[in-house]
Amino acid sequence: MNFLQELLSSIGRRTRGQTGHADKRDTPSSLARLTSVCETLMQPGGEASQILIAQEALERYASLDDAGRLAFFQLLAEHYAAEPERIHAAYAAYQEAEDNASLAQLFAVCEPRRQHLLRRLNLCPGGTYELVKMRADLLGLLKAHPELAPLDADFAHLFASWFNRGFLMLESIDWNTSAAVLEKLIRYEAVHAIRDWGDLRRRLDPDDRHCYAFFHPATGDEPLIFVEVALCRGIPDNIQTILESGDEVPPQEADTAAFYSISNCQSGLKGISFGNFLIKQVVQELKRELPNLENFVTLSPVPGFAAWLQQTRDQGELNLSDDLVAELDAGHWREPGKARDKLAPEVRALAAHYLIDVKRGGSGMPLDPVARFHLGNGASLHRLNWPGDVSEKGLKQSHALMVNYLYELERIEQNHEAFSREGSVVCTQEIRRDAKQARGRLRGASKNPSKTDPKSNPKANA
Amino acid sequence: MNFLQELLSSIGRRTRGQTGHADKRDTPSSLARLTSVCETLMQPGGEASQILIAQEALERYASLDDAGRLAFFQLLAEHYAAEPERIHAAYAAYQEAEDNASLAQLFAVCEPRRQHLLRRLNLCPGGTYELVKMRADLLGLLKAHPELAPLDADFAHLFASWFNRGFLMLESIDWNTSAAVLEKLIRYEAVHAIRDWGDLRRRLDPDDRHCYAFFHPATGDEPLIFVEVALCRGIPDNIQTILESGDEVPPQEADTAAFYSISNCQSGLKGISFGNFLIKQVVQELKRELPNLENFVTLSPVPGFAAWLQQTRDQGELNLSDDLVAELDAGHWREPGKARDKLAPEVRALAAHYLIDVKRGGSGMPLDPVARFHLGNGASLHRLNWPGDVSEKGLKQSHALMVNYLYELERIEQNHEAFSREGSVVCTQEIRRDAKQARGRLRGASKNPSKTDPKSNPKANA
Amino acid sequence: MNFLQELLSSIGRRTRGQTGHADKRDTPSSLARLTSVCETLMQPGGEASQILIAQEALERYASLDDAGRLAFFQLLAEHYAAEPERIHAAYAAYQEAEDNASLAQLFAVCEPRRQHLLRRLNLCPGGTYELVKMRADLLGLLKAHPELAPLDADFAHLFASWFNRGFLMLESIDWNTSAAVLEKLIRYEAVHAIRDWGDLRRRLDPDDRHCYAFFHPATGDEPLIFVEVALCRGIPDNIQTILESGDEVPPQEADTAAFYSISNCQSGLKGISFGNFLIKQVVQELKRELPNLENFVTLSPVPGFAAWLQQTRDQGELNLSDDLVAELDAGHWREPGKARDKLAPEVRALAAHYLIDVKRGGSGMPLDPVARFHLGNGASLHRLNWPGDVSEKGLKQSHALMVNYLYELERIEQNHEAFSREGSVVCTQEIRRDAKQARGRLRGASKNPSKTDPKSNPKANA
Amino acid sequence: MNFLQELLSSIGRRTRGQTGHADKRDTPSSLARLTSVCETLMQPGGEASQILIAQEALERYASLDDAGRLAFFQLLAEHYAAEPERIHAAYAAYQEAEDNASLAQLFAVCEPRRQHLLRRLNLCPGGTYELVKMRADLLGLLKAHPELAPLDADFAHLFASWFNRGFLMLESIDWNTSAAVLEKLIRYEAVHAIRDWGDLRRRLDPDDRHCYAFFHPATGDEPLIFVEVALCRGIPDNIQTILESGDEVPPQEADTAAFYSISNCQSGLKGISFGNFLIKQVVQELKRELPNLENFVTLSPVPGFAAWLQQTRDQGELNLSDDLVAELDAGHWREPGKARDKLAPEVRALAAHYLIDVKRGGSGMPLDPVARFHLGNGASLHRLNWPGDVSEKGLKQSHALMVNYLYELERIEQNHEAFSREGSVVCTQEIRRDAKQARGRLRGASKNPSKTDPKSNPKANA
Repeated sequence: MNFLQELLSSIGRRTRGQTGHADKRDTPSSLARLTSVCETLMQPGGEASQILIAQEALERYASLDDAGRLAFFQLLAEHYAAEPERIHAAYAAYQEAEDNASLAQLFAVCEPRRQHLLRRLNLCPGGTYELVKMRADLLGLLKAHPELAPLDADFAHLFASWFNRGFLMLESIDWNTSAAVLEKLIRYEAVHAIRDWGDLRRRLDPDDRHCYAFFHPATGDEPLIFVEVALCRGIPDNIQTILESGDEVPPQEADTAAFYSISNCQSGLKGISFGNFLIKQVVQELKRELPNLENFVTLSPVPGFAAWLQQTRDQGELNLSDDLVAELDAGHWREPGKARDKLAPEVRALAAHYLIDVKRGGSGMPLDPVARFHLGNGASLHRLNWPGDVSEKGLKQSHALMVNYLYELERIEQNHEAFSREGSVVCTQEIRRDAKQARGRLRGASKNPSKTDPKSNPKANA
Repeated sequence: MNFLQELLSSIGRRTRGQTGHADKRDTPSSLARLTSVCETLMQPGGEASQILIAQEALERYASLDDAGRLAFFQLLAEHYAAEPERIHAAYAAYQEAEDNASLAQLFAVCEPRRQHLLRRLNLCPGGTYELVKMRADLLGLLKAHPELAPLDADFAHLFASWFNRGFLMLESIDWNTSAAVLEKLIRYEAVHAIRDWGDLRRRLDPDDRHCYAFFHPATGDEPLIFVEVALCRGIPDNIQTILESGDEVPPQEADTAAFYSISNCQSGLKGISFGNFLIKQVVQELKRELPNLENFVTLSPVPGFAAWLQQTRDQGELNLSDDLVAELDAGHWREPGKARDKLAPEVRALAAHYLIDVKRGGSGMPLDPVARFHLGNGASLHRLNWPGDVSEKGLKQSHALMVNYLYELERIEQNHEAFSREGSVVCTQEIRRDAKQARGRLRGASKNPSKTDPKSNPKANA
Repeated sequence: MNFLQELLSSIGRRTRGQTGHADKRDTPSSLARLTSVCETLMQPGGEASQILIAQEALERYASLDDAGRLAFFQLLAEHYAAEPERIHAAYAAYQEAEDNASLAQLFAVCEPRRQHLLRRLNLCPGGTYELVKMRADLLGLLKAHPELAPLDADFAHLFASWFNRGFLMLESIDWNTSAAVLEKLIRYEAVHAIRDWGDLRRRLDPDDRHCYAFFHPATGDEPLIFVEVALCRGIPDNIQTILESGDEVPPQEADTAAFYSISNCQSGLKGISFGNFLIKQVVQELKRELPNLENFVTLSPVPGFAAWLQQTRDQGELNLSDDLVAELDAGHWREPGKARDKLAPEVRALAAHYLIDVKRGGSGMPLDPVARFHLGNGASLHRLNWPGDVSEKGLKQSHALMVNYLYELERIEQNHEAFSREGSVVCTQEIRRDAKQARGRLRGASKNPSKTDPKSNPKANA
Repeated sequence: MNFLQELLSSIGRRTRGQTGHADKRDTPSSLARLTSVCETLMQPGGEASQILIAQEALERYASLDDAGRLAFFQLLAEHYAAEPERIHAAYAAYQEAEDNASLAQLFAVCEPRRQHLLRRLNLCPGGTYELVKMRADLLGLLKAHPELAPLDADFAHLFASWFNRGFLMLESIDWNTSAAVLEKLIRYEAVHAIRDWGDLRRRLDPDDRHCYAFFHPATGDEPLIFVEVALCRGIPDNIQTILESGDEVPPQEADTAAFYSISNCQSGLKGISFGNFLIKQVVQELKRELPNLENFVTLSPVPGFAAWLQQTRDQGELNLSDDLVAELDAGHWREPGKARDKLAPEVRALAAHYLIDVKRGGSGMPLDPVARFHLGNGASLHRLNWPGDVSEKGLKQSHALMVNYLYELERIEQNHEAFSREGSVVCTQEIRRDAKQARGRLRGASKNPSKTDPKSNPKANA
């Protein structure tokens, strides 16, 4: 077992070098044991006790400190890759035979050995969730250690299969849900923080609120993603009204379901997308339950707007009237009145431009991540609401701007096609006019021609 | 979309040629539509409606006739493989760069496109079970159509990941279980047929019987595998006693849990092994619940014994006293008495030899499939019981022979190692002596030397 | 504790006299111990261990033989009644004071001590069901031992309180229900016997069948009553069609829910009526689930028809053409044809008369028990179906006659009022005409004047 | 229907007189309608729609204001009592016949008609809980309106039957319980207030805490009573340690289960005792789950101690050294030291005397309600803990005194007998000595002789 010995001594060197602390002395031995356990787990002969070994491996991992984890990841990335000699040999055989058997063999040897290890770790009960947390650790190290990217790709590859849509369970969350799950909503809410249990209870009021989450059978009562919905009369333009429930409507009078918060719960599942399916399934669920509902919209933040505006002004690209940013910061518009009336058209125009025309470096996709998500799902950009969120966070991220994205099941497919093929943002004529107006002001506007001209949504303009 | 057009015309040719029936006219168009749907499902752009498309594909598949299914499988095997040009290009790039990115790309292009398609089909609710049934269809065609083997390998690869042990749920089955699940036990029981609901009820008697099954969250109340357990006083030597319950013991006096039937339920999951994990988890569960239990054994059939004996005699390899087979067929031994006393030692010796020495063509593994399974799990061969099963099936398969395999948790690992590395069958000294005696009679015995000498189990001999 | 001693010696005398068997020797001591335990249970001081004592009492009761049970019931009836002296004293006090306190005291001393004992027995888990079974035993003895009637009245009084409608749970029964519950349906079905599990499965087919039962929390998975419903197109006139399912309709095309079997499960709950509530709650449930349903009818037996007809003829009260009963028995009408056409109007006329005019001795209520039940619930008599049930039982009970009772929620109240106040049977004009025709033939018809003239149901005739 | 008309006009008079407010004008009509509905509910003829009528009655009651409710209760008390003429007639018949039928009739007419009404109101789903709340309203009026006592007696009589122990379900409460139930614990906790959800979570920590509640099937997720248990090493003497969890022990090392809070949840169920059964069932449950547990004790408040001490001193009955009460109020003993050491023996002596010797007016039962409850359950007085509760409430109620009551299943019965028959408090010798010492100081001590001499618990003194 020379390979293992080599590993162990390399672990020794590595961890000594990195930690340099006397009190971390046990890390090498702990990591060494973990590595040895993983090596056992790779063997074909040990099937009879694999579950126990996998369990030990995960426990040992959990007890590692940060340096130990990094060292473990580096070992996996380096020593559990595919083996070049076997690849070359398999390719030679394939070239000669060009048959299925040789191709299957080539595929098999190209697979990183890490994937086999991760599948084995997944054998023990609770293993899946431990692996999700392990990847969360890994993601935290990825920026500083780009050499770990292949390991991350293996996680992503396996998670895509394990967290297949077909395995997810949609659950309605309400006040009868267990406290163990509810406290996780409080912890994971990422858009509009839940202050306390009273706030949570308001958001689960059966009269005019709904909440849905996806769960996976292997991760038990850990939600993967959840969405909060408010039933309203008309399309809401203001998040404070919803959060403070100043405007309750009887269920039978509500005509609109507003998705006002959608939060991913597991950072370790980054890149495994659930939101798209969640929203669509919830739309169907609500339609079935409440046939009176006519509109399915979001009330969404525009998290990149303020930063973009600042940068645009700093770079002198924008010709702003009387320094718009300063006025926005001054906040005289917070109360209805002249200041607001004067600023509103300017904010709208810039927001429309930001959402429709401003793309992420060369990708043809919107710079704003929330816009990317909903437009990519096939929603259309329906309305700009200003001011729509005067919380501290709302002011800082987007000068209080919020937008509605509209989900029309019968248009989703074609919106999505237009967006993903041509980068076209489907929106109302009004928003298109707003954007056009803003473009005039941009010093470099002429460089950005018609290709991104938004499509209008006929129904939205009717 | 030339590829699709080519596909469609090839479908036309194929199905016309094979079916040759006027009334199957709709098959081509139905298959053509399925193929077209699958092609849509492969596109990156259609994510928004993937679930619906996957659903349509599975429904169209279900409505195909046998010829249509074969044609569909052949199309998948041929046209959804990996693409050679891309493999060559990726290999060239990898050879030059020898880095992770190029390796990942090579891995990606080596993956058969079928796997992507199957993952997409798995998106819709209920899709997993439809795919399991699809593979059951495929397995039925495999012998006559070996060209479909690569497609089967793709199913096996994905199922191994989807039906990972970590996703399985162990459930206790009893008379409070739903009739919908219970009737599946009746249908799937593969060892000792369940005659009717009364027979089933007896097997679920809470006083001295237990039954456990594995379920998978994506296949709902379809059991994957189940095991039936009888609580006994002492190790049972006779299946009729268990099935007819002539020997009930109070739960607190039982010292033995006998696994007398274990059945896989889904032919489409062939090769995805659950039995090993099931038995071990049930042993742990029973130990926890009933601390009085001391022995965990099977009462197992020896399905290949009679056929081997016949063949051995036909080939003249065996020097049988007074034509043993004829005497066994005559059946005078069915009642206790001289005939039985005379035959018993001979049957035992031959059985011991069959189980210990007779291997499946060159593999070093026992010829008998049940022996292969339990010994491969780390059980030891504990006792030969003759006569142990005088049912029609038992007489035909094994001249009434049954055996006990013993599961000792603390020895499982080492038994398994000895078995899988050296092919050694761990058994009692008594069985070893029986086998030795039989070997003397074999004409070709000298060709089969000591390599397969069984290891004895010290505890079993104490 | 003289009272107890007296009891014990009276037990001795009683059981010796009645059984007269040497091998029942242990009955006296067993009964004596039960009586002693019951006496302890009556004491105020023993609260701390009441549950255990109640448990012992119920176990001892269960182990008594028939003679012991009779003796036990007689003791309860005799020695656990209210005490006359205390009643006289309390009445005197009440007469003097005429206040609430003295009235309450009078009420308290009039309560048979048996009720206190039964409440105490009900303390232990499972006690309620044991008491239900105890009353079933009692009911079996009541005819031969009318002196036990007061004890039965106590059971009835307490059960009416414990099995209050508010405590019942309506459950839908289907193939996903546990086998433990389903086998009880097979056992308790009292109208059209369920042959086996296959027959049961057909009756639970989710496409066109429903089944509902009431359960009580204290009696666990023991159903109290259940009803079987078939979804049909049009009002069914024949039970064989339903039981053999020759006429399935797609759920969306069904316009009628037919209640074709309703069975009480617990003989010990005789007189505690659940059927009325069950049918009405099921009607509401079905209306909610399947808005297409327009008719809610029964397809009911007429269990007293044949016996009444025989008796009527025997007593010479009826002037039957060519001896109708003989023709009915001959059975030439079993196949469609002349014999049937000739008999049909006569059978209808007699059936209409039987259901509308024939009353149970002076009560003003129909002689037929099924008619009493449904008409008492507020249903109307909707249609006579002949032949409707050609099973052996159907032929014997009612010469194959079946009837539909119609449940119209908006008429139930007024039908019920008319029926319970005036004994009026609400039915269609057609049935009224049939009955009128029959009355002409009755020799003693003139004695039975207009008082029972049925009311017609306007809607049913529209 | 003269009776009803009379009722209605009396309602008019009554409510006009009592409220005297123009804006309560609708009360009479609302109450009138309720009364009319109740009258309908009493009729035998209306069974078909009883559920709906009961529902309407309960809704109308819920919408009454305080004056309306009082008026309704008064009507019930006055007009729905038993009817004197019928009682006199039935008694006369009974006196003549002296048989079971006439006795049963007497019993029937003595029953207040209110009970029939309440049983009918209980017919509708959810009715039971509405009646529990109705009685809670009634209890609030009872002191000022003693004429309502008979109505309260009817509620109590029926509730005792409906909330029979055999119908209660014991549930373990933990962090997986629904928030809807958990928030009720926060609301109903009556001993040591739960500050917030964080505090609650601590009390449900699965490592060393348990919580159990009784539920009734007809009142759904409304707990009736719950108890909080801490697992400790040794018998705890201080509530702050438990509430602030400064002393966690691993589950396997705990030898003591301490019941530190027990709260009734439904004031409307006053007098229906659940606590006794709850504690005993929880003791059995814990013994089964955690066989290591040796001691089952409470850590209980002494709510009447401070008030009794004050009163005793005010009445000059007690010869206190240096004015003990003032020193207790000064609080120098709050920190360990001389003040505490000096006071401790005096507090203990007085507490022992208070718990053992001081009885509630002539009843022979302890004055302290918590002592009455646990000693009545068969627990023994095990240890006095001072200071045991330095919360504001603890200081005020009992100058920080707490006590442990010990539950030994095998002694419960005999302790209970001694207590309920002779008023003897079973306690340790140490506590007996403390009490004896205090008795010396009492000026009127000689009046209170040996009758209440406590029995010692041999095991507790071993």
